[in-house]
Amino acid sequence: MNVKFTALVDRIRTLILSKSDQELIDVIDGLHPADVVDVLESLTDSEIEALFSVIPDDTAAAILGELDLDDQADIVEALGVRRSSQILKEMDSDDAADLIGELPKEDRDELLNAMNSEGEDVRELLQYEEDSSGGIMTTEFVSIKSDWTVGQTLAHLRHVAPEAETVYYLYVVDADDRLVGVVSLRELVVADLHAGIEQIMNRNVRSVHVDADQEEVVQVFKKYRYLALPVVDDDGVLTGLITADDILDVAEEEATEDIQKLAGIVPVDKPYFSTRLSELFKSRIVWLMVMFLAQSVTGAILERFSETMRSVIELTFFIPLLIDSGGNAGSQAATTVIRGLAVRDIRLKDLSKVLWRELALGLALGGAMAGVAFIRATFVGGGFAIPIIVSISVLVIIIMATAVGALLPVCATVLKMDPATMSAPLITTIMDALGLTMYFFIARAVLQV
Amino acid sequence: MNVKFTALVDRIRTLILSKSDQELIDVIDGLHPADVVDVLESLTDSEIEALFSVIPDDTAAAILGELDLDDQADIVEALGVRRSSQILKEMDSDDAADLIGELPKEDRDELLNAMNSEGEDVRELLQYEEDSSGGIMTTEFVSIKSDWTVGQTLAHLRHVAPEAETVYYLYVVDADDRLVGVVSLRELVVADLHAGIEQIMNRNVRSVHVDADQEEVVQVFKKYRYLALPVVDDDGVLTGLITADDILDVAEEEATEDIQKLAGIVPVDKPYFSTRLSELFKSRIVWLMVMFLAQSVTGAILERFSETMRSVIELTFFIPLLIDSGGNAGSQAATTVIRGLAVRDIRLKDLSKVLWRELALGLALGGAMAGVAFIRATFVGGGFAIPIIVSISVLVIIIMATAVGALLPVCATVLKMDPATMSAPLITTIMDALGLTMYFFIARAVLQV
Repeated sequence: MNVKFTALVDRIRTLILSKSDQELIDVIDGLHPADVVDVLESLTDSEIEALFSVIPDDTAAAILGELDLDDQADIVEALGVRRSSQILKEMDSDDAADLIGELPKEDRDELLNAMNSEGEDVRELLQYEEDSSGGIMTTEFVSIKSDWTVGQTLAHLRHVAPEAETVYYLYVVDADDRLVGVVSLRELVVADLHAGIEQIMNRNVRSVHVDADQEEVVQVFKKYRYLALPVVDDDGVLTGLITADDILDVAEEEATEDIQKLAGIVPVDKPYFSTRLSELFKSRIVWLMVMFLAQSVTGAILERFSETMRSVIELTFFIPLLIDSGGNAGSQAATTVIRGLAVRDIRLKDLSKVLWRELALGLALGGAMAGVAFIRATFVGGGFAIPIIVSISVLVIIIMATAVGALLPVCATVLKMDPATMSAPLITTIMDALGLTMYFFIARAVLQV
Repeated sequence: MNVKFTALVDRIRTLILSKSDQELIDVIDGLHPADVVDVLESLTDSEIEALFSVIPDDTAAAILGELDLDDQADIVEALGVRRSSQILKEMDSDDAADLIGELPKEDRDELLNAMNSEGEDVRELLQYEEDSSGGIMTTEFVSIKSDWTVGQTLAHLRHVAPEAETVYYLYVVDADDRLVGVVSLRELVVADLHAGIEQIMNRNVRSVHVDADQEEVVQVFKKYRYLALPVVDDDGVLTGLITADDILDVAEEEATEDIQKLAGIVPVDKPYFSTRLSELFKSRIVWLMVMFLAQSVTGAILERFSETMRSVIELTFFIPLLIDSGGNAGSQAATTVIRGLAVRDIRLKDLSKVLWRELALGLALGGAMAGVAFIRATFVGGGFAIPIIVSISVLVIIIMATAVGALLPVCATVLKMDPATMSAPLITTIMDALGLTMYFFIARAVLQV
């Protein structure tokens, strides 16, 4: 595989350098666009530019659509407006809109104007929010009229099929272009040629509003297992189509965003190597700094109890253990609830059920850990005071951590915030302050100091 | 919406209790199976059982397929072998296999025998690993022979379309059932009726092996944007089909698994409320306990430096701040690299590039935090010794944390382990020990004690 791949890259490079255009076109046409992208990674910028100036528009469009957005933008900038507009006209309108949205403002209009009517479609798509239905839909869908026959529809399909992004679902509109039904290509193929579309269409067609959040769209796809979903405007007019292959990207993007938030990173929506170091810095420093400043509280708590620590220095040995255990148990609960909310396993109405379960879990986890902590602490020496203090503290801290971890994401949801902002670092910091306070109060009570 | 839904539940309940079977069937048939599932959540077990004994087999199969696996198993157990086998025969074979895999061993065979030939298909599917291609594929695909014509194929389709899970891609096999090509329904519809399949088929058909890992399958779908992907055995014989709608579930499952691992939870592959408390306990206690025991190291480190702490008790105030900052910065780096590896933004060959970027980031993050730490520490009083110690420690700890966080997931990958096991709690614990050691060495050096 790897040897074959290297040979392929070498062959393509040779063809580019020797300007063997027709042969190059033949080789590229024999590959899947996604595989061409792998080859591009091994070529220089000028070789890539030479390749794109030779291959046909539609091939170039298909390859461009598979690249990361910032690589797409680089190539378009390098090719210039004339060549780029030819290629962009052949791209799916949703992909073209994503690409043009990535360009500097001054280049956008020039390119859109050069794209003529296709430019208008893209201009329309650009006005929608990036993470809404409108931002991920394509305008290359097949709509058919409710008063056509099956035969008429099949004839129409022969014309439009090459342009459309999917023809497996045909959306039926009335005279005002309002969505009224759907016919699958499967049903069409087995239907009588003279039957009317109105007779065979399914009137129970589900659609999403053009302003709906993309996360909601993922849930609709997941629930109903669609291959495509039509998008309508306020008047119910069919304006676009979202296909299942795009949804996989959206779902992955949403998961990545949640994972970053859980780790206290401000989400970056670009691949790692396409993100500048300054952007990575900004995405990480925010929460690091917030947590750092919030740690002033733990500093103040320790300062307040410094006399207790000085007289029983053994108490300090357990500080990392206690605050980390609290942080870990809290993060586990928070992560479970946050993911449960994201994939709709947990709903807001389940709040009290979740809290009871987590409290029971906290009690069990805390109990088990308290037992181990007691044994562990006896090794420090100095009688039973330390083991008693540490084990009671572990029990209390784990129960509190589990409850806080489960509760915060739910509170965030109630306050219309993203539950994933209740990150592990945040919960750890909160548990540090709560845990240390509990620890020293328990220590003072037991030691009578 | 909510009022309408409550009215629907009431209506269905009334129809069940009054045994108005035909009316009940009509209402259910008018709903999407996924919507019926929402209604089931509001019904009692006996009402659900009554519903399933009345509705047609194929409707029951479609509804059952939308439920969580353990709810499916409960219903099948309640309905008994005879009724269950009728319904299961109508299910997609991949869904039926998932369901039967959930049942106790003794019930499986009885049910499979009652399903006759459909039972054989399912029995075959059950032998594959749950998270392999074989475990997620269906056997209801349409295969056509390479020597047929377009017309013959369309006639064949009219017969088999109702049974197949998807007819949008037709897989072409030779006389030995080996996969040799693919024709899309879209191409078929616009082709000449007398053309041979061999002339119009695409020979460049991509397939996955029946033992391939499901995560690999997700990546193939993501890369090539397929709606379906054929599965072949060692001899290249077509044995199954994976469809895009199932891939969305798999991708979400894999993301959930990674998220759980990152939070130090042993993955649970069931929805929150379907997981028993004892299972949740087990999934969380493992890492909590491991980290707890690993914290013995930090205890020992603090014990070793107890004299330093006793003489300069102010040093203890910064312990939570330092170890948390290290844990946070390390988790950020680890999470970034782990997710990058999972979505293939980062590859093993990028190792040195990743390390350089993270080191540069660590230096920038550490520098910024050290500045703030210096100012913060001056408020504690006692001259410049403490601010100097704390700020140098922060710088060193953040750089180390970022490097360790980036390196560990890569090491895990090299050792053929899942990088996501390098969880935030694990990195936090490692950074606790490293960070405290650095802190006290720096403190001793500066204080000359």
